[in-house]
Amino acid sequence: MDDKLMLMIPGPTPVPEKALLALAKHPIGHRSGDFSQIMAEVQENLKWLHQTQNDVLILTASGTGAMEAGIINFLKRGDRVLCGCNGKFGDRWAEVATAYGLNVEIISAEWGQPLDPEKFREVLEADTEKQIKAVIITHSETSTGVLNDLETINRHVKNHGEALIIVDAVTSLGAVNLPIDEWGLDVVGSGSQKGYMIPPGLAFVSVSPKAWEAYKTADLPRYYFDLGPYRKTAAKNTNPFTPPVNLFYALQVSLQMMKAEGLENIFARHHRLMTMTRDAVKGLNLPLFAPDHAASPAITAVCPPESIDAEKVRSIMRKQFDIVLAGGQDHLKGKIFRIGHLGFVCDRDILCAIAALETTLQQLN
Amino acid sequence: MDDKLMLMIPGPTPVPEKALLALAKHPIGHRSGDFSQIMAEVQENLKWLHQTQNDVLILTASGTGAMEAGIINFLKRGDRVLCGCNGKFGDRWAEVATAYGLNVEIISAEWGQPLDPEKFREVLEADTEKQIKAVIITHSETSTGVLNDLETINRHVKNHGEALIIVDAVTSLGAVNLPIDEWGLDVVGSGSQKGYMIPPGLAFVSVSPKAWEAYKTADLPRYYFDLGPYRKTAAKNTNPFTPPVNLFYALQVSLQMMKAEGLENIFARHHRLMTMTRDAVKGLNLPLFAPDHAASPAITAVCPPESIDAEKVRSIMRKQFDIVLAGGQDHLKGKIFRIGHLGFVCDRDILCAIAALETTLQQLN
Repeated sequence: MDDKLMLMIPGPTPVPEKALLALAKHPIGHRSGDFSQIMAEVQENLKWLHQTQNDVLILTASGTGAMEAGIINFLKRGDRVLCGCNGKFGDRWAEVATAYGLNVEIISAEWGQPLDPEKFREVLEADTEKQIKAVIITHSETSTGVLNDLETINRHVKNHGEALIIVDAVTSLGAVNLPIDEWGLDVVGSGSQKGYMIPPGLAFVSVSPKAWEAYKTADLPRYYFDLGPYRKTAAKNTNPFTPPVNLFYALQVSLQMMKAEGLENIFARHHRLMTMTRDAVKGLNLPLFAPDHAASPAITAVCPPESIDAEKVRSIMRKQFDIVLAGGQDHLKGKIFRIGHLGFVCDRDILCAIAALETTLQQLN
Repeated sequence: MDDKLMLMIPGPTPVPEKALLALAKHPIGHRSGDFSQIMAEVQENLKWLHQTQNDVLILTASGTGAMEAGIINFLKRGDRVLCGCNGKFGDRWAEVATAYGLNVEIISAEWGQPLDPEKFREVLEADTEKQIKAVIITHSETSTGVLNDLETINRHVKNHGEALIIVDAVTSLGAVNLPIDEWGLDVVGSGSQKGYMIPPGLAFVSVSPKAWEAYKTADLPRYYFDLGPYRKTAAKNTNPFTPPVNLFYALQVSLQMMKAEGLENIFARHHRLMTMTRDAVKGLNLPLFAPDHAASPAITAVCPPESIDAEKVRSIMRKQFDIVLAGGQDHLKGKIFRIGHLGFVCDRDILCAIAALETTLQQLN
């Protein structure tokens, strides 16, 4: 039905009406006092959302841009970095690091399984000469619905002492507890079309004082993604380059909504949505792709038996019920489908998606 | 007056209501057939606007991102490049090129004056060993209101034969004739908040077959701005990274409007707006910053006598008439003000701005 689509993909996620209407306001000049007021409010609320006193810088880019900036600003050519790879996004950060001439060592797990923190501990403990300069981890692996044990891996990084921890929090920020200051996370990247509940186009990077120390000697080439000018201008509530003013309007609104709901409530809601989804999928006798102990509160991947084509499930859900699910990426295409429950999603949405899924399965069998 | 601002800055430019309302539509999935349809239409219309059969790639970034991508995808570390500098943006592209380790030779002119094509001819003709790999030119220098003689400079580049021509068309595209295929322009960068008549957040790069040849051996590090994947996915009407879906809605609408107006009418309108503005400023006995023969159809910089503080003019225009003018950048702050007449601007807007300017000047003297 026209204009009736319900997005249950891991981004873009549903956008509240208030944020949509804010997008339609006429842009103002980005060098104006009015815009600086928005910047000031938004920056304060971003720190609240990130549970940090660190800088949280705002880029015009996708989440990949945030992660690229998070990697290339704090390292030197040839630096040894560990990259956790258990899905499409972990692989991508290894590609970024390789593209810039870093010495990338991959610690992998099968897609659908979490990274093993012990493997990180072993490699980090063996590095007595402190040559490892960064550990890059995807918190919630969007491609598989796996939540990696960032807290434990980060503890090993902290024991190492030298390496920075660089985190892809694209689908975890605003969905699961990520206390940046309490854990001491150095660099955390995220994107607007996820837990932020607004359309794509903005990306965020939080940067710790330790990372800024490393910035001083970092030598990878960069200009648009050089975070120094972002930091300098952020202190004056402005930006180095023209920002997407209308997305800032929407961000202002959505952060206000998040603050009104409260972090604990947001996390509890996502946990509940995840549990409802997983329980229902189990009730339908469909296998879950990620194990319970490593399940992402943002997205649930379902791995139907071979007799059921995952793309067929998506197609019926889309055509008959106007619900958009995500498919599998790369080698998982046709093998899994993914139910997004991230951002502006309530219990009713899950109930509705599950009811539609049940009817779809009946049709397929 | 609240919500009554009239933007006469060189970006963001005024946005038509139709495009604003398109922004407020709920995002759809960017991997959907519906989004690919938008991509297909938008890509075709971008080629029309660029007067080219070259790829016109779409990035989530500001215009600076487009120019960085346009520089770093086609060159090798240490390559000799000529950069035309006669304003803030020319200077910026020299900074980008330097940041990536290119061997940058600057050909400059005073801010407010156009680049001298003869200087380019001399240096290019002297380069018999064809070591110059690119010439980077800002077409309309937003900081000064100068339109550089791209056509002549490009002719010298073509006679050189080896060098690519890389053009910042951020405030010229959609304002003045820029026949990419006819002139053989290799790389042309632009941004959505200018002639495109939509808010900031999208950037565009057109790439010639010759530039793609250079891409094969280019070795500057890049990932988010690597144009190869943009080209590959554009052929399938999709994107390598999550695009700002809502800005695409607006772009779709604004390109339809531009097509309906027609390129010749758009250029004629901008020429008329420029002439009206310059004639009126002369009538008010205020000196123009750029000479008539090198005046940008996008923006007019006015250089009032020392007795009149340019910032004071802007302040009264803003407070009393709700008209936003741009100030001078860098060393020109307080010395010039700039009247934007780019994009969704009609004769009435100029009439109105000039009447307000006249009243403002009376107040100041």
